[in-house]
Amino acid sequence: MVKISTRIRYSETDRMGFVYHSHYLVFLEMGRTEWLRKTGISYKEMEDMGFFLPVVKIDITYKKPAKYDDIIKIYTSLKSINSRSIEFSYTLKRENTILVIATTKHIFMNNKGKAITLDKKLYEKIKRISGNTV
Amino acid sequence: MVKISTRIRYSETDRMGFVYHSHYLVFLEMGRTEWLRKTGISYKEMEDMGFFLPVVKIDITYKKPAKYDDIIKIYTSLKSINSRSIEFSYTLKRENTILVIATTKHIFMNNKGKAITLDKKLYEKIKRISGNTV
Amino acid sequence: MVKISTRIRYSETDRMGFVYHSHYLVFLEMGRTEWLRKTGISYKEMEDMGFFLPVVKIDITYKKPAKYDDIIKIYTSLKSINSRSIEFSYTLKRENTILVIATTKHIFMNNKGKAITLDKKLYEKIKRISGNTV
Amino acid sequence: MVKISTRIRYSETDRMGFVYHSHYLVFLEMGRTEWLRKTGISYKEMEDMGFFLPVVKIDITYKKPAKYDDIIKIYTSLKSINSRSIEFSYTLKRENTILVIATTKHIFMNNKGKAITLDKKLYEKIKRISGNTV
Repeated sequence: MVKISTRIRYSETDRMGFVYHSHYLVFLEMGRTEWLRKTGISYKEMEDMGFFLPVVKIDITYKKPAKYDDIIKIYTSLKSINSRSIEFSYTLKRENTILVIATTKHIFMNNKGKAITLDKKLYEKIKRISGNTV
Repeated sequence: MVKISTRIRYSETDRMGFVYHSHYLVFLEMGRTEWLRKTGISYKEMEDMGFFLPVVKIDITYKKPAKYDDIIKIYTSLKSINSRSIEFSYTLKRENTILVIATTKHIFMNNKGKAITLDKKLYEKIKRISGNTV
Repeated sequence: MVKISTRIRYSETDRMGFVYHSHYLVFLEMGRTEWLRKTGISYKEMEDMGFFLPVVKIDITYKKPAKYDDIIKIYTSLKSINSRSIEFSYTLKRENTILVIATTKHIFMNNKGKAITLDKKLYEKIKRISGNTV
Repeated sequence: MVKISTRIRYSETDRMGFVYHSHYLVFLEMGRTEWLRKTGISYKEMEDMGFFLPVVKIDITYKKPAKYDDIIKIYTSLKSINSRSIEFSYTLKRENTILVIATTKHIFMNNKGKAITLDKKLYEKIKRISGNTV
């Protein structure tokens, strides 16, 4: 499990006075980006190597709204991985209040847009590291 | 079922060359906004009357990516309604290709952030109209 | 001069109740995109041909705020063009009220990120067409 | 002068592979938000007290593009202040490379959308503090 925190920007609020709901998907991405960085290969490096992780499915439940200038915490865990896809689960909190719960599923894709199996070394690396971080 | 279409903006793309995945949530909102307008009360008017429809849950499946300058079609249907919540389902297409399938669930809230039951007249109005538009 | 109109999305508002100020830059881009399309070559086609028009300078004055669900009009004109750069000017209105005035400057760039002179045929095409649309 | 840094998010890139130009306006706001926090009153508290600082003018020059996963630095300085308006100037850098230079002008507004003169105590506070931070 990897924890990061971020401060809510004015641009992320809407006229209801809360964070507009699509921005939480950006927070999820920030969470898994730092999760991946902990494996020793950043997502940027993965893309430079020709591996892309497009999102194929998201389930997200909004429990409490985040507000302007809040500092929120994003907890990211590996949910599952196989050679063709990877799933993450997330909990977003402000102090002890759960704001959002979500899961995302991603496939492995090459730079021509084709679904591929993950490079074995990379797969082993993620598996091994995730043992320490799940 | 209400159909609208929109052209993909440059700002909605990402470095993968496709629409960044959070923007589809905005497209869903555009779809249900026009669905609601068809009931005879716009969402803006609902908020002015003190009724808010915050999102509490989204399930979204990404099948094919939309690209810059594409014209995409957003099909919005009522999935369910009761006095406390409403659900919509959506299909996004480029020509005959399905890009995204999603459902969103919303509760009724007043301007103090409290969950409420929908005003009976408004509820009947939506029920009656939706018979024609589902 | 090319005129388009767009409806303000909920996602474009902020907690002040108005359109968040960065989104107007997206509206400017929508305006010049349709201006370019009128020349007979869409911006997408220009990029496919290897010509990019990155923004190098923007001056923007905010006079009145746009609000949720407003329909705003975007008026785009060519301000200047030479072989190395192009400038556009914009006026955004809601009905007869001026909301925003802006100018943007762009250079011509190739797909390696190098500043270039515009292809002569494309330059002549824009010059000729702009006579009709300025 | 106040310095903050932020990491470029995937959602902030576009198909050109760089940060989409409107997002820099969000970075400017992040900069002045932290500048204001240094005065001892956060912008959130100012809004809670009924003072709003809407943007009325922005001049922005894009020199070099920021890229995905870059850590950029945002330097914010007070440019001028009087009882009716305030101006900030900004420099954005990646390491020693200047990416963007900008100035923003803001008026003081009350919660009814009326231009006002800044509360004298708040004005003195900003003046005094800015002596240390310009």
